[in-house]
Amino acid sequence: MNIALLGFGVVCGGVYEILKKLPEYNVTKILIRNPAKKTMDCMTLDFADIENDNDIDLVVEAIGGLHPAREYILASLNAKKHVVTANKAVVAAYFEEFVAAAKENGVKFMVEATSGGGIPWIKNLQRVGRIDEVTSLHGIMNGTSNFILSAMTSEGKDFYDVLKVAQELGYAEADPSADIDGDDVRNKCAISASIAFGCPVDVNSILQSGIRNISKSDIDWCRENGLVCKLFATAKRCGDKFDAVVEPVMLDCYTVEANVPKNYNITCLYGETIGEVKLYGQGAGGLPTGNAIVQDIIDVNTGSACDITFDKKLEKAEIIKGRYYLHIPAGTDGYKYITGDITEKEIPSENGTVIITKETTPAEIHKLTDKEKSVFAARFI
Amino acid sequence: MNIALLGFGVVCGGVYEILKKLPEYNVTKILIRNPAKKTMDCMTLDFADIENDNDIDLVVEAIGGLHPAREYILASLNAKKHVVTANKAVVAAYFEEFVAAAKENGVKFMVEATSGGGIPWIKNLQRVGRIDEVTSLHGIMNGTSNFILSAMTSEGKDFYDVLKVAQELGYAEADPSADIDGDDVRNKCAISASIAFGCPVDVNSILQSGIRNISKSDIDWCRENGLVCKLFATAKRCGDKFDAVVEPVMLDCYTVEANVPKNYNITCLYGETIGEVKLYGQGAGGLPTGNAIVQDIIDVNTGSACDITFDKKLEKAEIIKGRYYLHIPAGTDGYKYITGDITEKEIPSENGTVIITKETTPAEIHKLTDKEKSVFAARFI
Repeated sequence: MNIALLGFGVVCGGVYEILKKLPEYNVTKILIRNPAKKTMDCMTLDFADIENDNDIDLVVEAIGGLHPAREYILASLNAKKHVVTANKAVVAAYFEEFVAAAKENGVKFMVEATSGGGIPWIKNLQRVGRIDEVTSLHGIMNGTSNFILSAMTSEGKDFYDVLKVAQELGYAEADPSADIDGDDVRNKCAISASIAFGCPVDVNSILQSGIRNISKSDIDWCRENGLVCKLFATAKRCGDKFDAVVEPVMLDCYTVEANVPKNYNITCLYGETIGEVKLYGQGAGGLPTGNAIVQDIIDVNTGSACDITFDKKLEKAEIIKGRYYLHIPAGTDGYKYITGDITEKEIPSENGTVIITKETTPAEIHKLTDKEKSVFAARFI
Repeated sequence: MNIALLGFGVVCGGVYEILKKLPEYNVTKILIRNPAKKTMDCMTLDFADIENDNDIDLVVEAIGGLHPAREYILASLNAKKHVVTANKAVVAAYFEEFVAAAKENGVKFMVEATSGGGIPWIKNLQRVGRIDEVTSLHGIMNGTSNFILSAMTSEGKDFYDVLKVAQELGYAEADPSADIDGDDVRNKCAISASIAFGCPVDVNSILQSGIRNISKSDIDWCRENGLVCKLFATAKRCGDKFDAVVEPVMLDCYTVEANVPKNYNITCLYGETIGEVKLYGQGAGGLPTGNAIVQDIIDVNTGSACDITFDKKLEKAEIIKGRYYLHIPAGTDGYKYITGDITEKEIPSENGTVIITKETTPAEIHKLTDKEKSVFAARFI
């Protein structure tokens, strides 16, 4: 099988390393951007060299971003080449279009590497879906934010101190917002829910909040109450309705999810006959993500790839509900947006007020956090 | 696809329920033992009715035990029928023979349901093996013993009180020895290691100890030291040598494995490029195990079944090592078998003596526990 790589960064570097050991698979072209990095004959600066090469069976896309990734993917599918991608942003934005183009051209569109890094999450979600309807899924799907939350919990440090360490270790980017504000998790949540529910889920319909506002005092409160805070993607389906949200949650400290350490990820599903299944592993990194891409390549080559089908039409509804922990920092306006109706308990804290709410919806809480950006909110599980 | 079921107990009952919803798959014959239970026309008391039926493509074996299960499996394979089995005892005993017979007859031999119930363990082990060498695996692979250990930990009860509850709830058999003494886990360990290492592992070469001797005082000691006790299967490979053992282990209470609750299972592997992967789910039960069987059936029918190949020859060696917790009950002889060399620390306990050993091998510890059957031993992880 002849393969072209779009990009040659961490992920495609991992793919290249792994494929070197598998003689059936040849990387025959690599698209790069920087002419100074052209160190191999097979490297090209021009995507047309790949699009027009009839000997290429499969294109791996890992350039990231929406454009020209979308155009390259569509052009590759239309040139009857299978596409394997690690680019969660472009898949979350144009999933339905890609699946339709693959079907029309009789080729495969594979997305294992977009969600959960080395965890065989998408494949197992699809396999479970051969028998069961997956009615709910959740998970810790971002290594950076889990590294930060784990270190805050185990070392008692404050958010920005831990973020700095994560940046020094290469676990967090110079601009960490995609990881800590939930954008990255939201893309993965949309992709996972789309596959699980057989219906393209609009990524923009998923409410999202991150961990930027969590402070040492919140972690202390968790510890005192036998809880651990994690950033979760959650999606549920009920009949022809679904719901999905990305937000911090409060878990009993003696649960599997609460004990996912460092930059590891966990993904969980529920199916009627199989029950609960949880998958844990490296959520990012060149070799784990490269491994996920190569698994997709082997599945395409051996005819064991599962098709993605969007044959259901679901409507977004308020299915996910819960009680919330709200930390409203002193000197902010957050307090005035909380109506008396929602408050179950009010706890004065050294730097503001903690409110435990009655059961409510993410939408109600996001109304508040949209107005006062410094509030930290987490749903009790 | 036409399917015959051997047995119609909990597991095949689950398979039958699940297959009813999949129109491509027809159960055309069911082998039962008790003529009084012949409630459907497709039921037969005579295996020859299945063996000689050329319309049957695949046989599901879930009658348990070594004989006649072995003969039925071999006869089915020799009659060019694929075989899917949930019978860990017969696979652990005759794995190499079954794999050879399947290969000779050009049919598939599938064992997902033997290990880990509904957890897609075998499939993922095989998929990881397409790219990586799996160099180590471990797991909690018996729901009954995990239920007992979890309840002892959370409720502070003694072993036999919890066992009684487990029996009343149907989580433990009237004769619980296969579950609590490690036989069941040992079979699963042999099957998992054989697939992971590409070499049939002799089940009798795996040292085994269970949880029968654990007492409330051991659990109390764990809690005081931030530890949790679990029954583990462990297998490691190093070059052309391997090691495997089934025994209780002591884990930090803030680890994923330590927090596997009730009768759930977890299976873990390590591969070079994928890193650590852990899979959690229902380790037993009619529907989860039935689900695993149906996944195997679908894989055979869609041509996506992985072949089991035993192309390596590995030698057993002492690779697994660790420090041990030994509880020698008062009034027993265990003490005299411990040499001074091995002792790191001696702690008087209310009902005997606790010894923490220096690093040693399972073989050294099993020499002791073979001589004095009342000793409880667990390896620190």
